[in-house]
Amino acid sequence: MHFNAFTVPDIPLVERGDDLAEIICKNIRLCDHDIVVIASTVVAKAEGRVTPLAAIAPSNRAITIAERNEGDPRVVQAVLDESEDIILESPFLLVKTRNDNICVNAGIDGSNIDSGRIVLLPEDPDGSAKNIREAIFSITAKTVSVIITDTNGRAFRGGQIGVAIGISGITPTRDWRGSRDLFGNVLEVANEAIVDEIAATANLLFGEGSDGTPVVVVRGLDFYVKAEGVRELYFPESDDVVRDALVRG
Amino acid sequence: MHFNAFTVPDIPLVERGDDLAEIICKNIRLCDHDIVVIASTVVAKAEGRVTPLAAIAPSNRAITIAERNEGDPRVVQAVLDESEDIILESPFLLVKTRNDNICVNAGIDGSNIDSGRIVLLPEDPDGSAKNIREAIFSITAKTVSVIITDTNGRAFRGGQIGVAIGISGITPTRDWRGSRDLFGNVLEVANEAIVDEIAATANLLFGEGSDGTPVVVVRGLDFYVKAEGVRELYFPESDDVVRDALVRG
Repeated sequence: MHFNAFTVPDIPLVERGDDLAEIICKNIRLCDHDIVVIASTVVAKAEGRVTPLAAIAPSNRAITIAERNEGDPRVVQAVLDESEDIILESPFLLVKTRNDNICVNAGIDGSNIDSGRIVLLPEDPDGSAKNIREAIFSITAKTVSVIITDTNGRAFRGGQIGVAIGISGITPTRDWRGSRDLFGNVLEVANEAIVDEIAATANLLFGEGSDGTPVVVVRGLDFYVKAEGVRELYFPESDDVVRDALVRG
Repeated sequence: MHFNAFTVPDIPLVERGDDLAEIICKNIRLCDHDIVVIASTVVAKAEGRVTPLAAIAPSNRAITIAERNEGDPRVVQAVLDESEDIILESPFLLVKTRNDNICVNAGIDGSNIDSGRIVLLPEDPDGSAKNIREAIFSITAKTVSVIITDTNGRAFRGGQIGVAIGISGITPTRDWRGSRDLFGNVLEVANEAIVDEIAATANLLFGEGSDGTPVVVVRGLDFYVKAEGVRELYFPESDDVVRDALVRG
């Protein structure tokens, strides 16, 4: 078994209103069941999710948090605005975004954008993935899977890795439970989060700031299925032991 | 930019004393700077890290934990024996292994082994990776990177993904900090945990129970460097906010 992963060449600097599907299809010949992995930054830019810092008036709360964490109060305000729930204020701002993803700073990125502007996450990453997948089908008649990624830190392990925040044409996990291993034992291995593993794979090629080469195609893994949405990957609050401990903390 | 990932064919069932480097080199022609990714299960088996459940006498503590978590007290005892620190007893047993990796059940795997035996993690995964890398060099004169992987759950996200637990000939992270993005901004992006991203990449090909095809080669990403060990990826306790909250729980 094998697969290839490669960057889509010649993606220009993306701006508000750009048609990502069109840009991708112009620069690469896609095949059925390719997995098209896109850094959230360019999806956000195409959707105009860019805010000038000067337009943000930080609240007292944002100013307090920013002082404690040695951050920019305007960025903190933007994070608060994008969040449904604040899990940890310090030493870093850990939030649940309005899309139910728990991450630091609501995924807001201050790099790869002209000085003085920040890039938010796409408003509805699952919806963005679906739109791009459908637009690719309109242009090429190819059925592909689409994964939109962010880069997140992890509990217990340093560094950051690519994760899926919006998906279409693929399910978040594959389930080995119930199948049998080489010895005939029933496997108890739980769900494998394939969309996150594919996001990590693509992140190896995205390069600096996810902008020089923000689109990667993974070819040879056939995970295409008519399905939408990443959210089943996020724990219901009642099951989330770590969130619980941090909030009680 | 692109890379390929492929399974090494014809890996037999691995038993104590088997020479993994020899088995791998017999079945694939390696190139300089290939990344050889190996599921920890087969490394553990080659090293004889397999224990018959019947040989384990569970302590009272193991019996209590097993009752609460609806587990097997002998498996719980094996987990306690492999652990340096218990972070959470319930609803699952989250521990720090003697190799400083924080994971559920000390990575002990009850699948893919003849009924009645469990597979522990390799005793010293960084050492195992180094030995395999050096043995591959002895056989082929090729300098490769070696990554030994486990499959771990994550905070905040359901499902499990491949992670690196032992490495050789590669550094755990690459650091974008200080380099500049397309707009000339200095990137603040922290370390990218490339060894975990490569482990996730390989996990997509390992297949059921990581045993049918437990060795994957990633070719085309050149991360080779003379370096040893994954441990700098693990937070010092003083910096580990999540561990702290769980222990105080």
